[in-house]
Amino acid sequence: MVDASTYTAPVEDYAFLYREAFGADIVARATADAMTADDAIDVLTAAGEFAGEVLAPLDQVGDRVGATLVDGQARLPEGFAEAYAALVEGGWITAEAPESAGGDGLPTLVQNGLGEIWNASNMAFALCWMLTAGAIHALDAVASPEIRRIYLAPMVEGRWTGTMNLTEPQAGTDLGAIRTTATPNEDGTWSISGQKIFITWGDHDVAENIVHLVLARTPGAPDGAKGISLFVVPKFLVNPDGTPGERNGVQTVSLEHKIGIHGSPTAVLAYEGATGYLAGDLHGGLAGMFVMMNSARAGMGLQATGVSDRALQRAAAYAADRLQGPVLDRPAGAPIAEHPDVRRLLLSMSSEIFAMRAMGVRLGDLFDRAESDGTLAMAEFFVPIFKGWSTEEALRITSEGIQVHGGMGFIEETGIAQHYRDARIMPIYEGTTAIQSNDLVGRKVIRDGGATASALFDEITATVAALRAVDHAVATRTADRLERAVAAARRATDAVLGFASSPRDAYAVSVPYLMLLGFLVGGWMHALAVVAVAGHADAAPADARRLIEADFYGVHHLSRVASLAETVEAGEIA
Amino acid sequence: MVDASTYTAPVEDYAFLYREAFGADIVARATADAMTADDAIDVLTAAGEFAGEVLAPLDQVGDRVGATLVDGQARLPEGFAEAYAALVEGGWITAEAPESAGGDGLPTLVQNGLGEIWNASNMAFALCWMLTAGAIHALDAVASPEIRRIYLAPMVEGRWTGTMNLTEPQAGTDLGAIRTTATPNEDGTWSISGQKIFITWGDHDVAENIVHLVLARTPGAPDGAKGISLFVVPKFLVNPDGTPGERNGVQTVSLEHKIGIHGSPTAVLAYEGATGYLAGDLHGGLAGMFVMMNSARAGMGLQATGVSDRALQRAAAYAADRLQGPVLDRPAGAPIAEHPDVRRLLLSMSSEIFAMRAMGVRLGDLFDRAESDGTLAMAEFFVPIFKGWSTEEALRITSEGIQVHGGMGFIEETGIAQHYRDARIMPIYEGTTAIQSNDLVGRKVIRDGGATASALFDEITATVAALRAVDHAVATRTADRLERAVAAARRATDAVLGFASSPRDAYAVSVPYLMLLGFLVGGWMHALAVVAVAGHADAAPADARRLIEADFYGVHHLSRVASLAETVEAGEIA
Repeated sequence: MVDASTYTAPVEDYAFLYREAFGADIVARATADAMTADDAIDVLTAAGEFAGEVLAPLDQVGDRVGATLVDGQARLPEGFAEAYAALVEGGWITAEAPESAGGDGLPTLVQNGLGEIWNASNMAFALCWMLTAGAIHALDAVASPEIRRIYLAPMVEGRWTGTMNLTEPQAGTDLGAIRTTATPNEDGTWSISGQKIFITWGDHDVAENIVHLVLARTPGAPDGAKGISLFVVPKFLVNPDGTPGERNGVQTVSLEHKIGIHGSPTAVLAYEGATGYLAGDLHGGLAGMFVMMNSARAGMGLQATGVSDRALQRAAAYAADRLQGPVLDRPAGAPIAEHPDVRRLLLSMSSEIFAMRAMGVRLGDLFDRAESDGTLAMAEFFVPIFKGWSTEEALRITSEGIQVHGGMGFIEETGIAQHYRDARIMPIYEGTTAIQSNDLVGRKVIRDGGATASALFDEITATVAALRAVDHAVATRTADRLERAVAAARRATDAVLGFASSPRDAYAVSVPYLMLLGFLVGGWMHALAVVAVAGHADAAPADARRLIEADFYGVHHLSRVASLAETVEAGEIA
Repeated sequence: MVDASTYTAPVEDYAFLYREAFGADIVARATADAMTADDAIDVLTAAGEFAGEVLAPLDQVGDRVGATLVDGQARLPEGFAEAYAALVEGGWITAEAPESAGGDGLPTLVQNGLGEIWNASNMAFALCWMLTAGAIHALDAVASPEIRRIYLAPMVEGRWTGTMNLTEPQAGTDLGAIRTTATPNEDGTWSISGQKIFITWGDHDVAENIVHLVLARTPGAPDGAKGISLFVVPKFLVNPDGTPGERNGVQTVSLEHKIGIHGSPTAVLAYEGATGYLAGDLHGGLAGMFVMMNSARAGMGLQATGVSDRALQRAAAYAADRLQGPVLDRPAGAPIAEHPDVRRLLLSMSSEIFAMRAMGVRLGDLFDRAESDGTLAMAEFFVPIFKGWSTEEALRITSEGIQVHGGMGFIEETGIAQHYRDARIMPIYEGTTAIQSNDLVGRKVIRDGGATASALFDEITATVAALRAVDHAVATRTADRLERAVAAARRATDAVLGFASSPRDAYAVSVPYLMLLGFLVGGWMHALAVVAVAGHADAAPADARRLIEADFYGVHHLSRVASLAETVEAGEIA
């Protein structure tokens, strides 16, 4: 029977991506030869073992018991503090922090593999580290040497965690509406007052201190987003020797009762004259926050990949085990995995997950080569697509995971339902899909007149040519489909550019346009895999599976591009 | 602010469907002039008031508190028993039961409106009546006069409820694997032993007795589905005077801990020598169950419509109330409902819900005229499409309802999350989407060589011609889109017929084929609405909204047909 806590990291897929799909030198070129593909695979192998042994077994108890508020202090279920200590002990937190902040600075394309693994094994737990990583990036970019020494260093060591305090009841997407105030004290510190909501890991008992990064408005600051500053507000004030001292003026009012990620404490925090320290420029708070936006949003794509893969692992294990009726054209005793429609569901899931995973590696590579190869614009073009498309599709994938289980999928104890509930937050936080798509259409497509989009389409067209050079039926079919899809994407992009002067049209179809590009890039990822394996005379079983997934993706997912192009071209329906 | 318990029945839409979209005589012709459209609307108006006042306020407590098992007895939250009594008192249960069973026999096209309303106001509660209705239909078809008098009559009066006991741990979709046994007693009764799972409203305290319809295997019966018989097994044995007497040998082992419909007790029942009465023919048990299959499956489509509409009502109310940032091309103070993407989400929801609602009326009409007009084959063709497509799309619609709420959507207290969780069972029970699609492809398309499908496409083509006769831009666009969609559907149907000799191909794409037909029929429903309103010189505001929804549906949903045709034509990817 299925052991619900089992998780196996997809190291084999990463090995294929690092060694074959993107050429043999993708890791070396991204790291200026500091790492090889073998090194990267070793890192993921070790992470996978840790995640499988330590984090995955806590996933279900995190959901069932969840975070609770006891006498104003958030408590995590038994085992969470030990797991966090083990994560720190294993050096994983320092490994991912940038060198400039005192970390090991693993390349992004390896971090992106880690991001999938942490989220797949325990999404609620992984959020703790994701938020800390975001805070590290933000402080690394803007903080003074003193703040770096006192607050950043303990976070990089993993001793303290970090949070992002943006949202208030009236200020969600519209951060310009923030009302939390910061008034100057005589000693150069600031006094912070106001209420913040939806603060992920806003309070907990797994580490000794919490460094809140808080957006607030100073007296006389300009209205709107240009009057917001960023403050460091520790849960415990810091003693001269660097140890946590007395409690600061921030209280945990409540923890939210959410559909999912119960193991991640989502706090309402009340700041009542809390002592804060300005980080970065006065009125430059949003700039500080935006520093970490790319990595946080890309992180959501990795989260979508991980949670989707966990759902697939459960569904595949259940389907391989469960017998129910005779299976068409298969011997007696064949499990439900062989039923045509269950097989369809599993391939639907796995083929999209591969596309997401490859997209994550590709995006990491683009960021790693941003300076050396000028790939930043393309990386930033990918971010909203990866975040938006992957998280939206994760809803369908985790739903398909339930469907594979039939009636058992609706029963909480089965375990698959948790992923469906957990996943639902992903297209919302770190900017809803609409925010991603508006960023894509406004800042990434219209602003440069479609130049980056066009460069992407040219790259994909080059892959079509590479497919044509391979003598294999799947390569030919994939080339035909991808060629049609690129043509549809160009039409849709022309339509979006045509909406530059009627922005409601652009923003009314920006989500369909984002989804179109997601399906297209996913098809491109599969095409690269086909090029890598279809040429081999002696295809291994794993290669045969890759060809089936590519073919399946082309028929079931890439085919969406044409219909989405029709949607995009119509603009707003009014 | 939004009152989460508010529910307003869509009587206006039904009035449009009964009076305009399907012609002015649809109610009269379905009822042999026994009812007019006005009568039907009066019924729905009264039901809507009852549902809004009595059932809707219990929806959230049903979810939060749920059904609990206390000393072996399932208990519902406070208010449920009173609401059930009021439902009976109002005559609603008798109203829907067939005349042959002693009910009022409301026509199906009116019952289908009621089905939406009951499910929208309180899906968990509505299940109690849906299961009873199914049991009434099954007994009405097969039971002896004695069973009709003792068990059927109290169910039709609403005093007792009914259940369906099919599933066992090893026998879900494959009912032939049932192991529950029935051994004959000397007095002509049977002794029933075995365990049944997933029994909806299998135990409760809202009515005085429960009539379980149990599938079991008799000694020496043939293997598989042909050896299964149907038994009536009351929770309380019935005294000679017809009142409930001592407890029968059926115990409630547990109630399932489910993702949703917490207010519906899903029981594990243990039969230990319980006294049962054979209903219908020995070994003819599945036939008895299949009697109620059409209405039960159609009921799921109504459930999908209702739950989707409740999610829309919450989302629309929230979006009309919530302010967040300036809205493009709208005056200051415009709510988020005016943001292009929120408007897109709301139109995506409402345009599909209208299509579902119209499909429900159309299906009811086909059943009502089955004998008089020979429309049974077409009705049965629609059943799997309505069940499969509507329930799958309800997942997306309730998810969009969450998305409209942003971060608040993920918080349980907001209320929208319940519908997302509740909806997840709909594509599973009463036959998964794969079961629906296999029924569609195998029994409804391949068996008659595509004749019924072709007749449907001809009807839709006639509507295209009607659209061409209307001088309105939306009519013209709708005609163009629907014509292309029908052509794609014909191609896909030809492909399915071509798979008759390679059934794995047929069943590997049967769900995409079902979805294709669902999107197509939805487009047809909108087309009928366009024909009804676009010709008017003095279009009312409600008519303008219908045109926008039709146009939106064509661009955002009907456009899926072409891509699904490509999927279907490919067959199984192996």
